[in-house]
Amino acid sequence: MVPHLTTALNGPLLALEKRMLDAMPTIEHWFRSQWLEYAAPFYASVDLRNAGFKLAPVDTNLFPGGFNNLNPAFLPLSVQAAMAAIEKICPDARRLLVVPENHTRNTYYLRNVTALTNILRQAGLDVRIGSLSPEVTAPTNLETHDGHSILLEPVQRRGNRLVVDGFDSCAVLLNNDLSGGVPDILQNLEQSLIPPLHAGWATRRKSQHFAAYNKVAGEFAKLLGIDEWLVNPYFETCGEIDFHARTGEDCLAAKVEELLAKIRIKYDEYGVEQEPFVIVKADAGTYGMGIMTVKSPDDVRDLNRKQRNKMSVVKEGLEVSEVIIQEGVYTFENINDAVAEPVVYMIDHFVVGGFYRVHTGRDVDENLNAPGMHFVPLAFDTPCSLPDCAGAPDAAPNRFYAYGVVARLALLAAAVELQENDPAN
Amino acid sequence: MVPHLTTALNGPLLALEKRMLDAMPTIEHWFRSQWLEYAAPFYASVDLRNAGFKLAPVDTNLFPGGFNNLNPAFLPLSVQAAMAAIEKICPDARRLLVVPENHTRNTYYLRNVTALTNILRQAGLDVRIGSLSPEVTAPTNLETHDGHSILLEPVQRRGNRLVVDGFDSCAVLLNNDLSGGVPDILQNLEQSLIPPLHAGWATRRKSQHFAAYNKVAGEFAKLLGIDEWLVNPYFETCGEIDFHARTGEDCLAAKVEELLAKIRIKYDEYGVEQEPFVIVKADAGTYGMGIMTVKSPDDVRDLNRKQRNKMSVVKEGLEVSEVIIQEGVYTFENINDAVAEPVVYMIDHFVVGGFYRVHTGRDVDENLNAPGMHFVPLAFDTPCSLPDCAGAPDAAPNRFYAYGVVARLALLAAAVELQENDPAN
Repeated sequence: MVPHLTTALNGPLLALEKRMLDAMPTIEHWFRSQWLEYAAPFYASVDLRNAGFKLAPVDTNLFPGGFNNLNPAFLPLSVQAAMAAIEKICPDARRLLVVPENHTRNTYYLRNVTALTNILRQAGLDVRIGSLSPEVTAPTNLETHDGHSILLEPVQRRGNRLVVDGFDSCAVLLNNDLSGGVPDILQNLEQSLIPPLHAGWATRRKSQHFAAYNKVAGEFAKLLGIDEWLVNPYFETCGEIDFHARTGEDCLAAKVEELLAKIRIKYDEYGVEQEPFVIVKADAGTYGMGIMTVKSPDDVRDLNRKQRNKMSVVKEGLEVSEVIIQEGVYTFENINDAVAEPVVYMIDHFVVGGFYRVHTGRDVDENLNAPGMHFVPLAFDTPCSLPDCAGAPDAAPNRFYAYGVVARLALLAAAVELQENDPAN
Repeated sequence: MVPHLTTALNGPLLALEKRMLDAMPTIEHWFRSQWLEYAAPFYASVDLRNAGFKLAPVDTNLFPGGFNNLNPAFLPLSVQAAMAAIEKICPDARRLLVVPENHTRNTYYLRNVTALTNILRQAGLDVRIGSLSPEVTAPTNLETHDGHSILLEPVQRRGNRLVVDGFDSCAVLLNNDLSGGVPDILQNLEQSLIPPLHAGWATRRKSQHFAAYNKVAGEFAKLLGIDEWLVNPYFETCGEIDFHARTGEDCLAAKVEELLAKIRIKYDEYGVEQEPFVIVKADAGTYGMGIMTVKSPDDVRDLNRKQRNKMSVVKEGLEVSEVIIQEGVYTFENINDAVAEPVVYMIDHFVVGGFYRVHTGRDVDENLNAPGMHFVPLAFDTPCSLPDCAGAPDAAPNRFYAYGVVARLALLAAAVELQENDPAN
């Protein structure tokens, strides 16, 4: 089942994809050399936007949920990649403690934890799930409502080790993005923490990620002899912003204006007739809260109370004080007339699959990862790693290869970002 | 499509498989530590024999053919493993020259070369095929009779480099087992040769492999607390044997008698009612020539001229002067009443799939890899890497997990063997 994709403006993207396919040995060789220099994160998912004329990452998640949405046929690929990742990061590990998000009532999220721990168990690890949630005070079996149940155990601190009852692991895998800050129980652990604490939203900034992405995309564009903009969305930041006190609004409006002007120049260059837009979102954090589509500087001057409230609080009550203003990339992929956004999953530096977020109630310039959104996960039919070199550029395996390449660019940016922001350096 | 397997004596094997499944984290942890110590060969295939009461490797091929027989659904797994292998062995490689066997008229073998080069191309390498065959004097397109054709180019020596016209690669991948000796054109190359020359049958000895396997199987058996014999066939060697001059026959007969007695003790211990047998085969070489099933020392004393001729010549006229006498392992797997032998494929240390050699005209104690044999390749339905821990021990994914474990034991033995016999050491 290959989803039927319609791409409104397919000229330049076909050219871009064709360029990637032709340069495949060059691209893979370049990635190999990059992975010698930078350590890939243990896992990641990357949200892509495919505008027809442009294919770019818009968000890189270092604590990916949604493993349950991947095509089960590619499970062996995830397992093999997990084996490679474990060998590199903690070859001595026999036991692994997984620390999930505290959403114990979100059965979709619990299914992700089941899928993820299944991958790790198949890779030969003894896995238990240790919850930080204050609600989990004893071993708790939760129903995932897909015929499975999942056992969460309360984590305990024993000296400088994080354990669950009778289970002391060599390493701890975080599937919790630390949006609410780093809890004391995770501080100064002697176990390997994967990914490291500074990958969490308590420390990480999207603008740091996209600054690293600038470097990566620039090198890649040079390698391929293409315009970097075709794979890289512009972005800007302001300093501190307080949406309630309305400080920083002028800076925001000025940056929006500046970005829209830059995008317009590119749209003119490529004959794109859509109206440029930017996305304003929290520089730290996730879950699609605090996100605004902006088409004019006036949009950020005239926020009403409701909009200001929406922008100033993200997950777990963390207040937005820094925002990133990112070039909006239209999504022109449609599945049964619904807007679709590809999400690509990686373990170590291997692409292991992906799915489409399909949303019927949203428009082509809106964020699809929104609270309460009811996306339909549509598993990719191919794992994004194998192009069909004899096929047309718009053949599904080829489109997916391009997705895998751009997703890996974002992954590499995350690797650069984590290395540059490592407090141990 | 999971092949229907019937296993005559399933008691002890179920116990063995169950032991492996229960110990999976221990097994995978142990493999990880072994691969830190020993470099896995680039690729290998292992012939297994499943006797119901015993599951053991009988041959380890370091220049595997038959990639065309793998389930195409697992191609991404091979590609990912090839990427990992390339990163480890030659991260700088962008181009790879593949040197196949000289069987330019064997379309089945050519299909293997197509499948193998496809995997390597999908892994992002620029691949050309350089033939050593004296018949290939110019670029030659050969038909594989499955709708594809394949381009073979004559290899040339340029200084200390092996090239084809206009293509100088960082590394050379041998899919030629050097049964006929190491040709001068391959001597003292400055490029990386994968696998190294001493992996070829000009140097390699099965008895060295199984000596290394004794070490590996012994450690593994200790790890699992099982009788090593359940995964390890006994073997013996004699010195030089000349089947025509009939020298060495006494040694051979004595070793056969000794082995049969040892096997009988084990058969009694496990209540196996079959008659013990041994396989006498060339210690160097492949392709199933020079192989004899022996049930009594008298069998090797009364060889007629035809049998002596058969034993004294293997592939490409290489004369048998050394033999290995190996415990025969009954195959009790049947598919539609035909005898089946599993062959497991690995790239780097990852199991990437396998198939059954199915042979209607052969008996349970005969070698299935015989000249002129018409085996039916039956691709495994699972890639041997994912056990179904909730399923029964004889559930197909679990049987395949055990196959993957035993095949990796043989792979590890090959790694030990290559390291111990490396002329550079």
